[in-house]
Amino acid sequence: MLPGMETELSRRLGVEHAIFGFTPFPAVAAAISRAGGFGVLGAVRYGAGDELARGLDWMEAHTGGRPYGLDVVMPAKKVGGVSEADVEAMIPDGHRTWVEDLLAKYGVPELAEGDRAGWRITGWMEEVARSQVDVALQYPIRLLANALGSPPADVVERAHARGILVAALAGSARHARHHQEAGIDIVVAQGYEAGGHTGEIATMVLTPEIVRAVDPLPVLAAGGIGSGEQVAAGLALGAQGIWLGSVWLTTTEAELPSRALTEKLLAAGSGDTVRSRALTGKPARQLRTEWTDAWEDPAGPGPLPMPLQGLLVADAVSRIQKYETPELLGSPVGQIVGRMDEERSVADVLDDLTRGFERAITRLNRIAGRE
Amino acid sequence: MLPGMETELSRRLGVEHAIFGFTPFPAVAAAISRAGGFGVLGAVRYGAGDELARGLDWMEAHTGGRPYGLDVVMPAKKVGGVSEADVEAMIPDGHRTWVEDLLAKYGVPELAEGDRAGWRITGWMEEVARSQVDVALQYPIRLLANALGSPPADVVERAHARGILVAALAGSARHARHHQEAGIDIVVAQGYEAGGHTGEIATMVLTPEIVRAVDPLPVLAAGGIGSGEQVAAGLALGAQGIWLGSVWLTTTEAELPSRALTEKLLAAGSGDTVRSRALTGKPARQLRTEWTDAWEDPAGPGPLPMPLQGLLVADAVSRIQKYETPELLGSPVGQIVGRMDEERSVADVLDDLTRGFERAITRLNRIAGRE
Repeated sequence: MLPGMETELSRRLGVEHAIFGFTPFPAVAAAISRAGGFGVLGAVRYGAGDELARGLDWMEAHTGGRPYGLDVVMPAKKVGGVSEADVEAMIPDGHRTWVEDLLAKYGVPELAEGDRAGWRITGWMEEVARSQVDVALQYPIRLLANALGSPPADVVERAHARGILVAALAGSARHARHHQEAGIDIVVAQGYEAGGHTGEIATMVLTPEIVRAVDPLPVLAAGGIGSGEQVAAGLALGAQGIWLGSVWLTTTEAELPSRALTEKLLAAGSGDTVRSRALTGKPARQLRTEWTDAWEDPAGPGPLPMPLQGLLVADAVSRIQKYETPELLGSPVGQIVGRMDEERSVADVLDDLTRGFERAITRLNRIAGRE
Repeated sequence: MLPGMETELSRRLGVEHAIFGFTPFPAVAAAISRAGGFGVLGAVRYGAGDELARGLDWMEAHTGGRPYGLDVVMPAKKVGGVSEADVEAMIPDGHRTWVEDLLAKYGVPELAEGDRAGWRITGWMEEVARSQVDVALQYPIRLLANALGSPPADVVERAHARGILVAALAGSARHARHHQEAGIDIVVAQGYEAGGHTGEIATMVLTPEIVRAVDPLPVLAAGGIGSGEQVAAGLALGAQGIWLGSVWLTTTEAELPSRALTEKLLAAGSGDTVRSRALTGKPARQLRTEWTDAWEDPAGPGPLPMPLQGLLVADAVSRIQKYETPELLGSPVGQIVGRMDEERSVADVLDDLTRGFERAITRLNRIAGRE
């Protein structure tokens, strides 16, 4: 049996360890839940509801009845009836030409018919996210997380009516209080060092600041965490659990689009990431590549705002992934990538986190003169 | 009696708590040592050796025989006989004019004769730092820390011959290994969120990375730490002690150059700092002000490299401090400034850190099922 890591929140959700694993891969999410953590499946790479339903059916068949959650990207502000085609039409031609020229420079081939959008971001469109939520609420998920902003009031209400807890990511105490006013149950404090969308306040400062700001709401610490000692640190900061995303990318269950990308992640150091607007239009930490450098170049057009940038680059990113263009190939990932230096199973990662946590507690007790 | 916080390193140095307090103010450094921590006096604002000697005489008279240390800024590379005047001559006239115009725009008065350089950085000149070390080695200091790069080999040797431990700050594992090869005894892992010179890797990731890189050398965690729960987090990450700088700025013993600056620090939030080259030429975290914004402005000349920038702005910073120009008034400080919201004595801060540490350990033991 693994050593315990129990908080009020982990007991409430019925999991052994207060470890929340966010991942776009159902096989990883299910393995996290089976190993005693709480798997959270990212919905953003699914299309509308029916496609997500297949993913959730799979989760039901593979989590062995253990609790799990879903992460959607749902804007609180209604933009009312804006379709993907409407957004596509807002992208300047100059940006499209610049992207094509960049791909040509690196010799990235075109996609074949039917290959389109291995990299998908349509989950960010409000109508897609809404149809995902409609589907998700028909499944026995225990948590609905919103990755960007507070979820809309009616969604919070419908989730609560089904006994589903609602979480939202925050990069500042102000965001966290806004979430609290929106009626959510859990705040994920996402530090500067995290992969994906981040603010500028580091986990060490952000976590206790948000814990104090939204007390008594439970807070999960996110950003820079990939070992048991870091789990202990995050919990020491007052969190009721740890939210990890990056570490699962190099698990054997992960389904990365390219072997070359796995190798790149395994080789990268903590200094090889950058907070860039290249992928989504908002600052998101990812591997630094010649792709992110090109978007920083003052001579280039620079990134468009969300959601335009994501639509602009969707095909380009798919092409780079499919043809494994080494200079451009990247992924959202946090500074913890420096520690991700071997492929392991999800169960081994969980085991390592809980055992490392135990060792850290023993060491702390010695320092405090208690053991 | 305060609860304990003992590591191998704190025992070796003969202090009760593994809390290392860096400060430019002798009254603060002495109070830290008297309260059971380890005070480290920053030498950079002193001039050559004789001026520093007065500071160290004062320390001897006020530390009550408790151990303390000194922090110098000594480049490892010899630049050979370069004087302050030589460096002054390398500053372009365009930069001087731009600074004068900026001060005029905000109506900052000239300094009176004799008021010069309340803000001093001459300690960064190699010959000044060397004369400081010559003086320091005649005092019973227990630690000599180098704030920028590895200390020169002969200095490490002379310090060791007197039983003085040598520490150096590092922002990456590569820097830390370089320090280790230079024969130092302690690495201070200075995270992105720290005040003053920082790299881009956050404390959560940097600390364990450096602990692993230089094992078995002891590592101090620095950056973002100002509460007992953050002390527990830093120690959980494998550090043998915590290095704090920012939190002492708003202690009652601190001798800030301006009351308005104290008020500004007390009012600032964690998002009110910026990593800027405006003060020294190297990226240093400080309050974000219209001064730092002006140096970021692409229409301006941008900062010069170290040590030119520090010399260029020394008088300007003194004038801003003396006349308390609200828009421009700033200070090096870390993201923890958001938590610095009341003036307290050094002893109260230490008390708060050790009691908060105890509470964090108790909570962690409960999570681990040990209490």
